[in-house]
Amino acid sequence: MLTRGNCIVGQSGGPTVAINASLSGVLQGILESENYNSVYGMVNGIEGLLQGKYLNLSETFTTQESLDTLSITPSMFLGSCRFKLPHYEVAPEVYEILFKFFTTHNITTVFYIGGNDSMDTVVKLSSYAKLKNFPIRIVGIPKTIDNDLPMTDHTPGFGSAAKFVATTMLEIAHDTYIYNIPSVTIIEIMGRNAGWLTASAALARTTYSCAPDLIYLPEAAFSLEQFVEDIKRVQKERKNIIVAVSEGIKDAEGNYISATGTSVDAFGHKQLCGAGKTLENYLKDQLGCKVRSVELNVTQRCAAHVASKTDIDESVLIGKAAVQAAIDGLTASMMCYNRISDAPYQVEIVPHAIEDIANKERIIPRSWINEAGNDVTEDMLTYLRPLIEGETLVGYKNGLPIYCDITHLHNKHFFEHLEEN
Amino acid sequence: MLTRGNCIVGQSGGPTVAINASLSGVLQGILESENYNSVYGMVNGIEGLLQGKYLNLSETFTTQESLDTLSITPSMFLGSCRFKLPHYEVAPEVYEILFKFFTTHNITTVFYIGGNDSMDTVVKLSSYAKLKNFPIRIVGIPKTIDNDLPMTDHTPGFGSAAKFVATTMLEIAHDTYIYNIPSVTIIEIMGRNAGWLTASAALARTTYSCAPDLIYLPEAAFSLEQFVEDIKRVQKERKNIIVAVSEGIKDAEGNYISATGTSVDAFGHKQLCGAGKTLENYLKDQLGCKVRSVELNVTQRCAAHVASKTDIDESVLIGKAAVQAAIDGLTASMMCYNRISDAPYQVEIVPHAIEDIANKERIIPRSWINEAGNDVTEDMLTYLRPLIEGETLVGYKNGLPIYCDITHLHNKHFFEHLEEN
Repeated sequence: MLTRGNCIVGQSGGPTVAINASLSGVLQGILESENYNSVYGMVNGIEGLLQGKYLNLSETFTTQESLDTLSITPSMFLGSCRFKLPHYEVAPEVYEILFKFFTTHNITTVFYIGGNDSMDTVVKLSSYAKLKNFPIRIVGIPKTIDNDLPMTDHTPGFGSAAKFVATTMLEIAHDTYIYNIPSVTIIEIMGRNAGWLTASAALARTTYSCAPDLIYLPEAAFSLEQFVEDIKRVQKERKNIIVAVSEGIKDAEGNYISATGTSVDAFGHKQLCGAGKTLENYLKDQLGCKVRSVELNVTQRCAAHVASKTDIDESVLIGKAAVQAAIDGLTASMMCYNRISDAPYQVEIVPHAIEDIANKERIIPRSWINEAGNDVTEDMLTYLRPLIEGETLVGYKNGLPIYCDITHLHNKHFFEHLEEN
Repeated sequence: MLTRGNCIVGQSGGPTVAINASLSGVLQGILESENYNSVYGMVNGIEGLLQGKYLNLSETFTTQESLDTLSITPSMFLGSCRFKLPHYEVAPEVYEILFKFFTTHNITTVFYIGGNDSMDTVVKLSSYAKLKNFPIRIVGIPKTIDNDLPMTDHTPGFGSAAKFVATTMLEIAHDTYIYNIPSVTIIEIMGRNAGWLTASAALARTTYSCAPDLIYLPEAAFSLEQFVEDIKRVQKERKNIIVAVSEGIKDAEGNYISATGTSVDAFGHKQLCGAGKTLENYLKDQLGCKVRSVELNVTQRCAAHVASKTDIDESVLIGKAAVQAAIDGLTASMMCYNRISDAPYQVEIVPHAIEDIANKERIIPRSWINEAGNDVTEDMLTYLRPLIEGETLVGYKNGLPIYCDITHLHNKHFFEHLEEN
């Protein structure tokens, strides 16, 4: 058992719709354990903390209702940063500022919710604490829609993004099939190096819709010539074709396809096209039929109104589990999902040493992609299916979802006022 | 009262998530009235009917459950066309084919669900029937996310698209506010000539989020210089700015802003940029801060999982009302909403002569846009608010929304098989 003290929690990296569920889980775990006096929140992650920006969350979330609303609020209540802590030998003053804060505020545990880069922060804080024999526990909680963290079966936030992608893919199929003219619709999905989210588009297939007809992932080399042949083959059976592509598809030499599409605008500037737009332009030339591309863009990581209940519930649990693990003495670790069975779907939450996770990426095994490199296998579908199950109960007021107030994130004067008081 | 006969219904133009609700309303009205023996559905609108493509809907929708699922299914169960009927003096054979079908199948009423262009079909069929003294009623039922049909307070499908836009805008605000660096996010929303849907982004504003900070509509002349000044002014108060723009914004001379952004790609082809992308490229140059654009694209017209209950319920009712009106002898008309009061919100459904509606557009009155041309007024908000109220009960299976089977729309061989049988 720790000496009764305080703790602090931070969020970092790109948003998901489940990262606040994990924050809510941490807060619920703390309330239930009664092991900490106060829980603080870094605002804008470790970078914000270095600037002295934090909130007292014990005062902000005092009811179960407010914690439940937090659980279904998209993006990050505490704000984010993309900040790589310098090595302590290079910039010891950075660590001195942070650990002085921890001492002053009697912080005995740091919870840090994030992806690959954020786990680098967990590694560095853990190493510094060990070196200085500082009595603090540093626990990482995963999140990323990319699903590319090693050692965990999947990541919080991925299932909800996958549910949004599959739902939107099905709805775009309905939208696409209505015209009696040949067409190709290309849907560009996030994932620079790992194609998990694009693969989840396959979950959209129903008894009446085969969309997406083709799926291209960064893990399989992409060929423009083969792509056109694939399209022409499917066109023999179906007039409206829907294609899912990862933003990060690459050719056999490892060059991003999106780079091919770079163009020069009327102002003389180079414009970067996405993979979808690049393929759209190429296909128009090759096929002479209607071709369009849709970039799902940021909506796939913030559409909390269509979150996966499985994902949100698990994300709360992994936050709670992190608290219990810290109380039990865990440090220098990240909490992971370990899948026990596919059907019935069952996972347990276990910690794993942070060194094996930070700055590492988990991509799709080639055996889960078909030989032609234009679809996923049944193994992939078996893996994906349980992750999008269930719907959350989002409350609505005036026709809009009810989410948490995040004034502190965008009001330029919020922290000035705090300092004045 | 009509002689007991059959009727036919068609859908045409661009999709919305409420156009099937109106189809469901027509089917429910027919079931309740017991005034028709069979109801047929044109597949791919009037163009498909000319090719002999139709379904017997009396056999397809036999339960209230199937009608309820139809009501919340996006896009068009019957498929669509973008086909302008030729004038009957130019191509009398077209009318002869159609009216021969009506005679052969004992069709006493045609219901046609569509927007401005589709109402042209209603006008032409009505005129031909009148000329030939053909005993048939032709009744139009409106739909369009653009909300640009005259004589009706609003159009079926608009409220749901507006709810999706407002919800997504709020979620993008959560996504945008998390980084502590200045940024501008431009959201491009559909609406070539009428800015109603872009205006509905204003409904996203809550006690904690002022997104969108700026709104630009086709109805107010757009100036790139003024745009940059507007952004710089808002940046003094807030670091993350969110802008809603209609795809159809134009300068004072009436030139589309999107045309400015035309560029040439690596293959030497001209590429058309959207208004959002054009403004993104321009702003990057002017401001030197993070700028991105998001095109909501087709999702705004097919995201049935977040439809407005008000919209769906009204769309069913207007379908039912069309049936009753036809039974009562109405022809050459479109059903319209007439708003009785804003609070409590109340509308009645009344018919209006089709000549005053077809091929006409209703744009936003200039008085509902602020003087600076970068926001909407309180009158606009009062008008919009009730239209996004309420949520529909979408069923889910395997984590995906349950919608109607639309195999007949995309299986190349569906109608071949029908002919064989």
